[in-house]
Amino acid sequence: MIKIVLIGAGHLAFHFQEQISRCKKVVLKQWYSRSIEKIKFAEKTVDITDQIPKLKAADLYLICVSDSAIPDISNKINVTGLVVHCAGSVPMEVLSNHPRHGVFYPLQTFTKTRELRFDRLPFCLESAIETDFELLEKLALLLGGNPHKVDSERRVLIHLIAVVINNFGNHLLQLGSELSEHNNIPFDIFGPLIKETYEKAVAMGPQHTQTGPAKRNDQQTLDKHLSMLESHDLKKLYLNLTTSIQKRNEQKQL
Amino acid sequence: MIKIVLIGAGHLAFHFQEQISRCKKVVLKQWYSRSIEKIKFAEKTVDITDQIPKLKAADLYLICVSDSAIPDISNKINVTGLVVHCAGSVPMEVLSNHPRHGVFYPLQTFTKTRELRFDRLPFCLESAIETDFELLEKLALLLGGNPHKVDSERRVLIHLIAVVINNFGNHLLQLGSELSEHNNIPFDIFGPLIKETYEKAVAMGPQHTQTGPAKRNDQQTLDKHLSMLESHDLKKLYLNLTTSIQKRNEQKQL
Repeated sequence: MIKIVLIGAGHLAFHFQEQISRCKKVVLKQWYSRSIEKIKFAEKTVDITDQIPKLKAADLYLICVSDSAIPDISNKINVTGLVVHCAGSVPMEVLSNHPRHGVFYPLQTFTKTRELRFDRLPFCLESAIETDFELLEKLALLLGGNPHKVDSERRVLIHLIAVVINNFGNHLLQLGSELSEHNNIPFDIFGPLIKETYEKAVAMGPQHTQTGPAKRNDQQTLDKHLSMLESHDLKKLYLNLTTSIQKRNEQKQL
Repeated sequence: MIKIVLIGAGHLAFHFQEQISRCKKVVLKQWYSRSIEKIKFAEKTVDITDQIPKLKAADLYLICVSDSAIPDISNKINVTGLVVHCAGSVPMEVLSNHPRHGVFYPLQTFTKTRELRFDRLPFCLESAIETDFELLEKLALLLGGNPHKVDSERRVLIHLIAVVINNFGNHLLQLGSELSEHNNIPFDIFGPLIKETYEKAVAMGPQHTQTGPAKRNDQQTLDKHLSMLESHDLKKLYLNLTTSIQKRNEQKQL
């Protein structure tokens, strides 16, 4: 049985709370948030608090607050268990005031209102003391995930790549959806294309699935599209992404 | 029974040939390619030719060649059936030398070596003569797709949005995969993230699923990521996309 104290009330903390409640061998001893109202809904099933000095004894303290708030909250915590944060781009060392510290970073995008499947979710794990790694690994497995040993330097790289894939990928969909709305085209007509785009890239590797006017150097279509884009920002993005695709065409020809 | 002559031997033509062979009420009368070797494999099941003057009588002539080759091939064809092209950004009028002409544009990304599901595939249909529309609609349904009436002007817009979603979306995945490879990170660790990114955006709408450092104006992480990118092009793209996300943050605050 792993006893957890959860610290924070953002998207990630909500998903951890839900998943822990489903796992028989993990128990949520306490949930802390400086805004107690945010976690009030859970008070019948878990001990809640907004007082750092009142944190209970536990095996693991899971800090799920915004990156910039991690050092401050870490400095206030005075416990003997293992203290970990869940951030992609924050070095493990910000927790070094605790003899036992580490990182428990889930490589996923979280939104409070959307249920998330934890099965095979990759967790990037790191611990200051080697024996603590087992506990993190065990927790990742009990939650249904896939544990990976990743040091702080590589974790930032993984986070950077995740930003390119998820944050920028989502933004492209938003740009597409805005163009649709502006022109009264129902966005759901693109559903099958979106699905196939990403399933194909995952199945075959994205270097083998590039298609379209940039890939085939179809200047006529590129010019037509550029002339249709009213926004200066969108034109710039279209040009930069097109150039980036075309540079890879040239490399192939060399 | 709809009788088809297929013209071209690219990715799209291959998928049409396969799907037509599965449909009882559609028959491929003939397959034309100027490079007969490309379609030789099919000669036992379909009449193949590389001679435009020898095209057979059919209900529909499906031109699946590159955009720039469409006008030339259209001018060479001398038939009485309905002649259509399958391109996103080419006006229907390039086929106006045929009294009966139209467009049969499937909104999807095609790769020869990947099997494609035609069920609910959106087809953007247009015809010069109104009575021909029914034939296109019937064919789209028989192939398993979803027919939509779309004129040439709106079709180019749809194609532009498809480029943003698919071509640029795939390219972001390629950039991510290159960064992974360069740093010896196995790209399949990002599989669950890619899947969730696009399923979440389709389910909730991409305007509701943006997360990450640009969205939360986390300048420290943005600076860290920028300092890690060695390529000038990648830095530029990172900045452009970040700025574009942040402009939408500002609009929300106003």
